[in-house]
Amino acid sequence: MRPIARELPGSLIRVLANANLDKSDVIPLWFGESDLTTAPEIAEAARESLLMGETHYGPNLGLTELRAELARYQQRLFATSAGLDNVAVTSSGLNALLLVMSALVDPGDEVVVPVPTWPNLVAMPKVLSAALREVPIRLEGTKFTLPVEDILAACTEKTRVVLINSPQNPTGWRMPEADMARLVAELDRRGIWLLADEVYARIVPQDTRPTSFLAHFDESRRIVAINSFSKSWAMTGWRLGWITAPRELIQTLEKLIEFNTSCAPTFVQRGGLVALGPAGERFLAEQTRRLDAARTAALAVLARSPRITVPEPQGAFYLFPRIEAMADGVAMAQRAIERGVGVAPGEAFVHGGEGHLRLCYARDPAEVTTAMERLLDALDSE
Amino acid sequence: MRPIARELPGSLIRVLANANLDKSDVIPLWFGESDLTTAPEIAEAARESLLMGETHYGPNLGLTELRAELARYQQRLFATSAGLDNVAVTSSGLNALLLVMSALVDPGDEVVVPVPTWPNLVAMPKVLSAALREVPIRLEGTKFTLPVEDILAACTEKTRVVLINSPQNPTGWRMPEADMARLVAELDRRGIWLLADEVYARIVPQDTRPTSFLAHFDESRRIVAINSFSKSWAMTGWRLGWITAPRELIQTLEKLIEFNTSCAPTFVQRGGLVALGPAGERFLAEQTRRLDAARTAALAVLARSPRITVPEPQGAFYLFPRIEAMADGVAMAQRAIERGVGVAPGEAFVHGGEGHLRLCYARDPAEVTTAMERLLDALDSE
Repeated sequence: MRPIARELPGSLIRVLANANLDKSDVIPLWFGESDLTTAPEIAEAARESLLMGETHYGPNLGLTELRAELARYQQRLFATSAGLDNVAVTSSGLNALLLVMSALVDPGDEVVVPVPTWPNLVAMPKVLSAALREVPIRLEGTKFTLPVEDILAACTEKTRVVLINSPQNPTGWRMPEADMARLVAELDRRGIWLLADEVYARIVPQDTRPTSFLAHFDESRRIVAINSFSKSWAMTGWRLGWITAPRELIQTLEKLIEFNTSCAPTFVQRGGLVALGPAGERFLAEQTRRLDAARTAALAVLARSPRITVPEPQGAFYLFPRIEAMADGVAMAQRAIERGVGVAPGEAFVHGGEGHLRLCYARDPAEVTTAMERLLDALDSE
Repeated sequence: MRPIARELPGSLIRVLANANLDKSDVIPLWFGESDLTTAPEIAEAARESLLMGETHYGPNLGLTELRAELARYQQRLFATSAGLDNVAVTSSGLNALLLVMSALVDPGDEVVVPVPTWPNLVAMPKVLSAALREVPIRLEGTKFTLPVEDILAACTEKTRVVLINSPQNPTGWRMPEADMARLVAELDRRGIWLLADEVYARIVPQDTRPTSFLAHFDESRRIVAINSFSKSWAMTGWRLGWITAPRELIQTLEKLIEFNTSCAPTFVQRGGLVALGPAGERFLAEQTRRLDAARTAALAVLARSPRITVPEPQGAFYLFPRIEAMADGVAMAQRAIERGVGVAPGEAFVHGGEGHLRLCYARDPAEVTTAMERLLDALDSE
């Protein structure tokens, strides 16, 4: 076996969760997944497609209808100039990230990634025999910050890609729009690709406008964004995502998709088409209200503990509180499980997450309140 | 962009077919796909799962029920010792191949592949910055042959993997069982992995027993087989496959799957479960009868032309006739399209396919007869 492959760290989130999945009294806040099932209109579209016998190969880049609808969706939301020819449908957002990296990153190249981060983001460059350069996201008072200067300072001659996840998992940090503009201009000048992971673009508080690097998209610029149906429309189990990129890169991705999964199932894509329409927007509006309520409820409980500092997330559906004097997040997560709440230790997020816990609040607000109370119990029992 | 990625050859099959997909009077024999839709019992299982709300993440290695059923299916069919712990479910057989190669092949390593071959098999090592060594499958009289000695002679110090597709696309060659035993023993002695692509294992004539390298499986041996639901059960559009490998490799693959597509959709896997049961076997029996009839019909028509030599395939659903004095297969394929039949030129299959055409006969036998007559017309018009 390849040493790189054998020694890949498994996800610490999965390790803890898998060992305790049979405990039905544990409220599971460890995964990045809503407890809601997909809207019935979306599921019905896939069911109808299966009934019609849409069970053959589809085009590598996805159904033309879906690509056109994705282009319109993004133009409406982000005022981007990217069109149908700039869109490739993929078998999940994760799959999209891997494909883009396979197109851009040679062995020995460097990828710059802010940390703490979702562990999968740093595993992928490793699989491609590329090197990683981490930029710390800093906690200043009760706010996470990441100056553009820090990102640029991490870039070297060997840097091919800067990977920005905004809104960010696990911190809830979002890059300000002015910083987005500066970063893409500067990276473009240096010949470095900006790869934006925007799967949480629609998971923002009700009064917040979604933002995207795609506002700066131009055929001649090195900007790629990946996105997914998973978080916005509770479609994690569908494995459907997309890439927006310059046409030349899309042409290369068409070949790489042929050699990875060939295409996403047509009946899955039919579900995606409905998600982009009115039924999907209705679902999003309701989900946003529910997430706002759950976040407010969670913050109210956590505020009771003097040991906890919780930066208010600007997007995504996680809290990433700092727990004073918590030496071992894994041990704390273990105690939390015993009290009936499943959380992810900060240690799971590559570097810089030590002393934090990640809590996914994409659940019923009352249940989230109970979960937070159990967490305080676990902290008190230390 | 990576030069390797940008310069990947696109599939010559796709190029010809995509340019002519709008011609509804062309009988399409170019893709490796049956005209049958998936059996309704299989589709219904996926529809039911969607209705029940199975729309969340599943385990990286696939549903335990499906892995257990796959293990039983292979034990029944191939008398293999591989069990549930040796099985990983993937997002297609293609995806399975890429994952296994990602686990085994470092940049600079060599992969040995018999040619002519499905172009995707040789593209994948390239994406991983590995080198290829081709072994020619030879046409001797009216029979394709590939001596084990030829395969072994192609192996060097740098060879990590020998990739054997049997039954083979495009030639219809199958490795004799005695050769399978010799090859795995010898590769094992040399520390080289045998990667078997067995997606056509069930696509064999009615009087032929399916064979598999898995008959030689053992925890301590370097044998991996990949398979797919696509060809056996007309499920090309579902993107569902599986890997059978030693446990240690499965543990590494679990991580690589997390970083590729994470999991196949649960509702897709529910379809796979039904395919492995009685409804799937009924479908296979009927499909086998239909393929035998179509092949017989095709061979009868092609026998009329003195320019054509057709090795009778021992498996898979292609004819790969040699056409005497055909200098340019692409030009011939173009003429065939004008006469109303879509074929793949031998040039599409890496090397050694020149002078041949590939015809997929997984269609209604009467339609296949018409297609072959059109092909003879095209040859006569040269």
